[in-house]
Amino acid sequence: MKKIGIADTTFARFDMYKSARDELESIGTGYTIERYTVPGIKDLAIACQRLIRSGCDMVIALGMPGPENIDKQCADQASRAILDVEIKHDIHILEVFVHEDEAENDNELAELADGRAREHAINAYDLLFRQDKLQQAAGTGQREGHPDAGPLRR
Amino acid sequence: MKKIGIADTTFARFDMYKSARDELESIGTGYTIERYTVPGIKDLAIACQRLIRSGCDMVIALGMPGPENIDKQCADQASRAILDVEIKHDIHILEVFVHEDEAENDNELAELADGRAREHAINAYDLLFRQDKLQQAAGTGQREGHPDAGPLRR
Amino acid sequence: MKKIGIADTTFARFDMYKSARDELESIGTGYTIERYTVPGIKDLAIACQRLIRSGCDMVIALGMPGPENIDKQCADQASRAILDVEIKHDIHILEVFVHEDEAENDNELAELADGRAREHAINAYDLLFRQDKLQQAAGTGQREGHPDAGPLRR
Amino acid sequence: MKKIGIADTTFARFDMYKSARDELESIGTGYTIERYTVPGIKDLAIACQRLIRSGCDMVIALGMPGPENIDKQCADQASRAILDVEIKHDIHILEVFVHEDEAENDNELAELADGRAREHAINAYDLLFRQDKLQQAAGTGQREGHPDAGPLRR
Amino acid sequence: MKKIGIADTTFARFDMYKSARDELESIGTGYTIERYTVPGIKDLAIACQRLIRSGCDMVIALGMPGPENIDKQCADQASRAILDVEIKHDIHILEVFVHEDEAENDNELAELADGRAREHAINAYDLLFRQDKLQQAAGTGQREGHPDAGPLRR
Repeated sequence: MKKIGIADTTFARFDMYKSARDELESIGTGYTIERYTVPGIKDLAIACQRLIRSGCDMVIALGMPGPENIDKQCADQASRAILDVEIKHDIHILEVFVHEDEAENDNELAELADGRAREHAINAYDLLFRQDKLQQAAGTGQREGHPDAGPLRR
Repeated sequence: MKKIGIADTTFARFDMYKSARDELESIGTGYTIERYTVPGIKDLAIACQRLIRSGCDMVIALGMPGPENIDKQCADQASRAILDVEIKHDIHILEVFVHEDEAENDNELAELADGRAREHAINAYDLLFRQDKLQQAAGTGQREGHPDAGPLRR
Repeated sequence: MKKIGIADTTFARFDMYKSARDELESIGTGYTIERYTVPGIKDLAIACQRLIRSGCDMVIALGMPGPENIDKQCADQASRAILDVEIKHDIHILEVFVHEDEAENDNELAELADGRAREHAINAYDLLFRQDKLQQAAGTGQREGHPDAGPLRR
Repeated sequence: MKKIGIADTTFARFDMYKSARDELESIGTGYTIERYTVPGIKDLAIACQRLIRSGCDMVIALGMPGPENIDKQCADQASRAILDVEIKHDIHILEVFVHEDEAENDNELAELADGRAREHAINAYDLLFRQDKLQQAAGTGQREGHPDAGPLRR
Repeated sequence: MKKIGIADTTFARFDMYKSARDELESIGTGYTIERYTVPGIKDLAIACQRLIRSGCDMVIALGMPGPENIDKQCADQASRAILDVEIKHDIHILEVFVHEDEAENDNELAELADGRAREHAINAYDLLFRQDKLQQAAGTGQREGHPDAGPLRR
């Protein structure tokens, strides 16, 4: 039995946790889920660390940075801290950030957040249970939340 | 009995410590407060570390970066160092920065600094004593010092 | 017998692993190859660390960042994390990134990705088995994937 | 008896060490000074570390970055490394940087360098010997080398 | 007997190693030199670490970043990793980078690379054998490869 941690924020404007959990449950079994909610994306790194210390074999970090320059800077700080935690504990953390300026309106943004959370939930499952599936897709231009780019056309 | 550390600076132009302490006292009990004042935001990381080494279970870091490009760079350095300390010690540090160019005039800036310090004081309390409250607010677009953005309207 | 690790992504739009492996096999023997595929470039650092912990004496990290500003930021985060892993374990990691905006069209980009992966495979082999070859080429303007710049003409 | 370390550079165009030492001597006693001079600001972090390993209870890092973009990048690298050393050893390092483009001419720049070094020397003394003085000045808009900004006028 | 490590790259377009070694030999004795050549500037940090682990008391890192934005980003990553290694091992690493866009033509660039390597070789020697010489030059506006800026004229 594996344990998957999911960290999310009250700052985000969409419940990406629900999307990720729903997708995981539709893929398969063999794992439990633990959740840790924090105020903002800068708090995600310690949330991930606490999930790992609580026994998680894999963590998904869900965040939704704002559209301003200062938000980009905060997202960058958050990402680097998450990477530090990942390397320190040698446990995969899949960072799932949706930037508010990636979509034209609220509806599109919600679709994107839902889709990206779901596709990274599949990545989490693959990394834990079926790594050969990732190897088969290597170099094929996979994208999460957007249509796949596909392999280069020569 | 928990201990909450509050680090602040002589550089800031508003006494955010007072706002945070006042708000904490209005929420509930079960904690003591320890304060550590330093010259500027770059000194906040070590202030946080010393508060943690002194036994704090939670730290709030209050700062007010200036409006120039070099101030943004300093704030970025300060934030990353604070994140390093947080991960190293596995203790939440809520960074509460108010940028001088976030408001039109002194009065607005003071309102913002007061409001943000208060709302993060509530976050600190929730992380320590009632984490379920945060989980219930996950993905709902909470903001600190500004009106909440709310969940995406679909 | 040495072990060379190769980390790659499903995000990349070209199978650089195949190019690197093919080139290595054409140079010489004395090594085995281990592969670790992850979703994106931010996952490469932990992939490298796991390859090192699995006994690799040298790692090649293959990635293909997108053309947007946010992609540049992600590539920067990924590079720094890879450097952290390299220093932590004292094992060479050759970062082989091909940026989507380095070429005019898909065909050129594929040529570049293939060429750069092959030339860094040679670098990996040289660092492992014939370091004197690198020393002889010091200061001579070697480039990977592009024509060599050559030494300064005085 | 405390020991205060002062790190400085041959790159700087003003002897900020002399200003800092002079100011310290005019404030009080109870400390000795140790100096470590390096070529440039990137060498300040290791200078600070060596001063700390030599027993310093407090360090002042004096530097004068140039006006170009590449100088800003070097200053950023230097600042982050200084912060790393500070957190690693849990000893305050007051970074005193004067950027060449902060003043209109040589004379102004010298005044600024002298003033900032002196005011941070006072900060160093306060952090070591009279921390309550800092606490009383919290949130009052103190500046070093420039006139104080003062508290927000509401 | 001290040992000075010199790390350099095949990417550089000038043999800065030769300049540094030549200058060192013209200054004095009491040291041996060890060299480690890598492909690019991002590989310099681990080269420095390996030189330090091999017993070097001082390291000089020679690199020549390209003129593009992405080259600046790589140089920044390389510098930070070199600083990490320096702090981790408490051994001075003098970073000697010459940016391709610092000069108008190949000839000027070669002069600059030669001059900067030589002047930092002197810095290395001074840090190892005659630190008082650096202290005497503190705050006097020394430059490496360019004419000295000199102290501020008041």
